[in-house]
Amino acid sequence: MHTDLVAALDIGGTKIAGALVDGQGRILVRAQRATPAQEDGETVMRAVEEVLGELAASPLWDGARAVGIGSAGPVDAVAGTVSPVNVPGWRGFPLVARVRAVTGGLPVELIGDGVAITAAEHWQGAARGHDNALCMVVSTGVGGGLVLNGRLHPGPTGNAGHIGHISVDLDGDLCPCGSRGCVERIASGPNIARRALEGGWRPGPDGDTSAAAVAAAARAGDLVALASFERAAQALAAGIAATATLVEPDIAVVGGGVAKAGDVLFAPLRTALKDYATLSFVQQLTVVPAQMGTDAGLVGAAAAALTRKAGVPAV
Amino acid sequence: MHTDLVAALDIGGTKIAGALVDGQGRILVRAQRATPAQEDGETVMRAVEEVLGELAASPLWDGARAVGIGSAGPVDAVAGTVSPVNVPGWRGFPLVARVRAVTGGLPVELIGDGVAITAAEHWQGAARGHDNALCMVVSTGVGGGLVLNGRLHPGPTGNAGHIGHISVDLDGDLCPCGSRGCVERIASGPNIARRALEGGWRPGPDGDTSAAAVAAAARAGDLVALASFERAAQALAAGIAATATLVEPDIAVVGGGVAKAGDVLFAPLRTALKDYATLSFVQQLTVVPAQMGTDAGLVGAAAAALTRKAGVPAV
Repeated sequence: MHTDLVAALDIGGTKIAGALVDGQGRILVRAQRATPAQEDGETVMRAVEEVLGELAASPLWDGARAVGIGSAGPVDAVAGTVSPVNVPGWRGFPLVARVRAVTGGLPVELIGDGVAITAAEHWQGAARGHDNALCMVVSTGVGGGLVLNGRLHPGPTGNAGHIGHISVDLDGDLCPCGSRGCVERIASGPNIARRALEGGWRPGPDGDTSAAAVAAAARAGDLVALASFERAAQALAAGIAATATLVEPDIAVVGGGVAKAGDVLFAPLRTALKDYATLSFVQQLTVVPAQMGTDAGLVGAAAAALTRKAGVPAV
Repeated sequence: MHTDLVAALDIGGTKIAGALVDGQGRILVRAQRATPAQEDGETVMRAVEEVLGELAASPLWDGARAVGIGSAGPVDAVAGTVSPVNVPGWRGFPLVARVRAVTGGLPVELIGDGVAITAAEHWQGAARGHDNALCMVVSTGVGGGLVLNGRLHPGPTGNAGHIGHISVDLDGDLCPCGSRGCVERIASGPNIARRALEGGWRPGPDGDTSAAAVAAAARAGDLVALASFERAAQALAAGIAATATLVEPDIAVVGGGVAKAGDVLFAPLRTALKDYATLSFVQQLTVVPAQMGTDAGLVGAAAAALTRKAGVPAV
């Protein structure tokens, strides 16, 4: 019998993952569906219900005390709604109420996916033991979350730490969010690849134009590929330094597909951070790779639900 | 008899102000010295001791339970030291220990001056009732502080909310802090004046080239003066939007000498904010002028000391 069992949902533009997770963060049961991202909202909700139905079929389900949801954002934890950029059928979709209805009235905790990743890294990963931390995902987009004063800081609406959409280049390129020069507009995987192609880099015979292919070229010494990663690193460094100057994390944890480039990203990132994190109280900031794998979103959503269940609101 | 009486110090590059402040934030006794900013550290400390000595001569002094210090930064609340940029004689100066020694062992609470202003605005000013707020001073420099989850958020070292030194223009002009394109480098009073002069604006017969003179010219319709304020507003907007995206304040309070320009600053600031604060959860952010006057630093330092005294650490 698990006295600390919760259900977790990790909702993204590609997949909807679910799990039953115990108080040690172990995943005991899993379920998953592809996200029908281009379908109407009810169709997307049906996929969530199928995931929950599969979890509920487990004999362990009756022990679940709460549901934690980490969702692609923006989310609105106050209204209990989600509006994931890549799921157009969900705009202000009442996910919390719908999940509560499906699960027989279990308490539901909603946070953004960057906040969920952060909860996971703080609980079991690279930010463990750090009372003030920034955790980031650099991938198709750039997301993040904060730990402040020893606790997850989702902010009032569950979106805090959204570092991908702070502007580090106020006259820079328009970002799909409507702003200019956002960290994501410069440092995301697709933008690393775009910049390399614009600079004259060409993919190999396999035609792979992903950021991973650019990283491979950079490792082989391609100057254009290196320059594109350096520019991404510069934007990430400016964003990390801004966050450090505002809320004083002592560690920045960077995960996601682009972080898999390893030193191709981390070496210029650490160099650029010296240029932007100049004040005495931010100079000690360290940057490290994430430790949690693809289950980070599930484990973090579970962490949020477990914290709530203990009577300590996650907000 | 005041049961909630504390001593407060507001230490800047120009003056060292002190006061005895009661639990309602009323200033009962005052003392002040010019800061001998270019002298050696002991000379500066002597000015602090004179201020404290004058306060201690009051019959009310015996009721003081703690000392709150708001100091020009950076400060280090962990080490109890200060290194004000404009007071070169103080580098890692052990201000907390020295003040404790002078005051017979009273508990001492140290925060940065931007954090102190924020404590004052949250207690009695424009941020009252807001659980998540950004307060700023736009003056010779640009400083700030944060209220998060209903409480002052000094951060581990007492410098959190230092918005003047986040980069909003990663390829921009070098800032004296060592970084590039900092909010302060674009939006401070001296930079507003510099840009106006570079653009061809000329002062009137009085030769006044302050930001206040540029503001007067802007009000009279001078296009170069207007453009310089608009650029400052753009940088402030990008910085405020970044802060909102990271920690979700619902209000930004802007004070300091440059804010006295009124609509010359606030009108383009509110317009520019729409360009940079684009995500759904930051669109509701409002920008308002500060309400506290020149005593904000003292009142805020007192607030920090009173909070500490109540057993709730300000950090």
